[in-house]
Amino acid sequence: MDKITLAHGAGGNASKNLINKIFKKYFSNKTLDALDDAAVLKISGLKAAFSTDSFVINPIFFNGGDIGKLSVCGTINDISMMGATPAAMSAAAIIEEGFPLKDLERIAKSMSVAAKNAGVEIVTGDTKVVKKGEADGIFINTSAIGVIKNGVNLSGKNAKSGDKIIVSGNIAEHGISIMLSRDNFGFKNNIKSDCACLNGLTGGILKVCPNVHVLRDPTRGGVAATLNEIAESSNVGIIIDAKSVPVAKEVAAICRVLGFDPLYIANEGKLLSIQSAADTVKVLNACQKNKLGKNAKVIAEVVNSPKGVWVKTASGALRKVLNSDMEQLPRIC
Amino acid sequence: MDKITLAHGAGGNASKNLINKIFKKYFSNKTLDALDDAAVLKISGLKAAFSTDSFVINPIFFNGGDIGKLSVCGTINDISMMGATPAAMSAAAIIEEGFPLKDLERIAKSMSVAAKNAGVEIVTGDTKVVKKGEADGIFINTSAIGVIKNGVNLSGKNAKSGDKIIVSGNIAEHGISIMLSRDNFGFKNNIKSDCACLNGLTGGILKVCPNVHVLRDPTRGGVAATLNEIAESSNVGIIIDAKSVPVAKEVAAICRVLGFDPLYIANEGKLLSIQSAADTVKVLNACQKNKLGKNAKVIAEVVNSPKGVWVKTASGALRKVLNSDMEQLPRIC
Repeated sequence: MDKITLAHGAGGNASKNLINKIFKKYFSNKTLDALDDAAVLKISGLKAAFSTDSFVINPIFFNGGDIGKLSVCGTINDISMMGATPAAMSAAAIIEEGFPLKDLERIAKSMSVAAKNAGVEIVTGDTKVVKKGEADGIFINTSAIGVIKNGVNLSGKNAKSGDKIIVSGNIAEHGISIMLSRDNFGFKNNIKSDCACLNGLTGGILKVCPNVHVLRDPTRGGVAATLNEIAESSNVGIIIDAKSVPVAKEVAAICRVLGFDPLYIANEGKLLSIQSAADTVKVLNACQKNKLGKNAKVIAEVVNSPKGVWVKTASGALRKVLNSDMEQLPRIC
Repeated sequence: MDKITLAHGAGGNASKNLINKIFKKYFSNKTLDALDDAAVLKISGLKAAFSTDSFVINPIFFNGGDIGKLSVCGTINDISMMGATPAAMSAAAIIEEGFPLKDLERIAKSMSVAAKNAGVEIVTGDTKVVKKGEADGIFINTSAIGVIKNGVNLSGKNAKSGDKIIVSGNIAEHGISIMLSRDNFGFKNNIKSDCACLNGLTGGILKVCPNVHVLRDPTRGGVAATLNEIAESSNVGIIIDAKSVPVAKEVAAICRVLGFDPLYIANEGKLLSIQSAADTVKVLNACQKNKLGKNAKVIAEVVNSPKGVWVKTASGALRKVLNSDMEQLPRIC
């Protein structure tokens, strides 16, 4: 391969290869190489999380949100998964000539509401305009800084044999909602993206259990890609109990018809929490107290072997959950 | 106007209107409203600068640099202009399907060299891929955080009557170089973009004179747009001495032929320093000691009236330097 393909942006194996072969090769440093959801670094003695994300979602307005809300929540979620309390945020737009000002205003308003709800201010920004045909509507980048309390030490490397894995609610809603908004395949449906800022939820979890091992939001590539990353970083196995994974009936039905596995579909308002078996009930309770975590379930456990990610089916057999090579849905975020 | 135009991205009046009518309306907060090159904020007691910029320059490889070097230096310069020492940087790429991997590698290498030279690490990143035709090659966003020492208090609001304005070297080289790389108009030329990271230069200035009033890098819209912003923020007048503005002969000649005023042309490795008359010689010396400031000159003075920006011509007459409404060169950065 000598050219960029859509798979390079899909969060699976091709993305991983691109990171290893180009970005890690040139940018390698201790902070970056952790490859967690956000960088964790010391700035003049202050423990901080720092993350960036560009959003190219299509369509820009969808059931449950828009590119503005997503661009705020996506990045707030990345620093929240490192246990940080958001301190400040940047926003930068690349806009195609001819883009309607009323749509820009609607997006700005949505960003402002999402930021206010998350308790963070957008303190700096940038706007670039390119000619008609040189971009598709609007792309938004956000970056965020947050402060991490002493004693909180989250990382994809920290999963341990015996740990339990909680998902904070029904999966696959963002990806399926976006897909149906592009082409509804003749389905009438009420599926909404789960797009939401999770810093309140992570704050609640860390309050009752500051020594959670891993928090992650399963976005591109879904739960499958995220758990594969964690299994590799922590050098463990993860066994998912198929029947315990919460999926709304309508989403499950559409996945069945279209041949998608919900485990591979993107979420934008869910998290995975990995903690010791002993801490699991209190974390589950903390999730369920928050409206964004009310359908939280224990879905998996961490084992020493077999390595990798597996689903235990109803019959008790183990099926390997591969890190997808496929771009199921481009421009999902 | 109900649609985005190229002028909205050009750094002049249309950009200002967009910021006031949409972004300030929805995002207004004390930190953002300062509208300096970077936000200055307290994070758990630490005084920090935070800035973001997206780079959409065309062509991506040009004489004197490329989109990678520019994306590192542009954002490092923004926080440096607030007096910050860079602490960490993010990088996010939006790439068009089919983009050559060897070009991506060349850009990553260039970013890595620029970051190393500036003494900053790229600690977090993101890659999105869009379909062929949905973007033009590659767009890069960078954000940076830096730490500001106590006693340093830079802002576009701080210019005072009697202050002198230094420019750190020959102007208009970035803009003219990019224009000629797109269409050389039959000229043979050796004009290089001045693209450079200025944190070494600002560090040198602040070492000898921590109470400099304003530092700014005159990028989009050139010296004219930057001085207009400062004159407005500080509610002062600025009188430029036309004959003292350093412009390389070849750049001046091309500007004459094409009818461009170098004051309006973008720079990517120059700064304007505004300080009291008494401090001006030591700041000038500090600039000239650094290879990026060796041709620094005093080019203007700050007055109480007339307000706005003016050029004193050879005959002694004052000509108003308007904030341009025109997009002279789209995708200049």
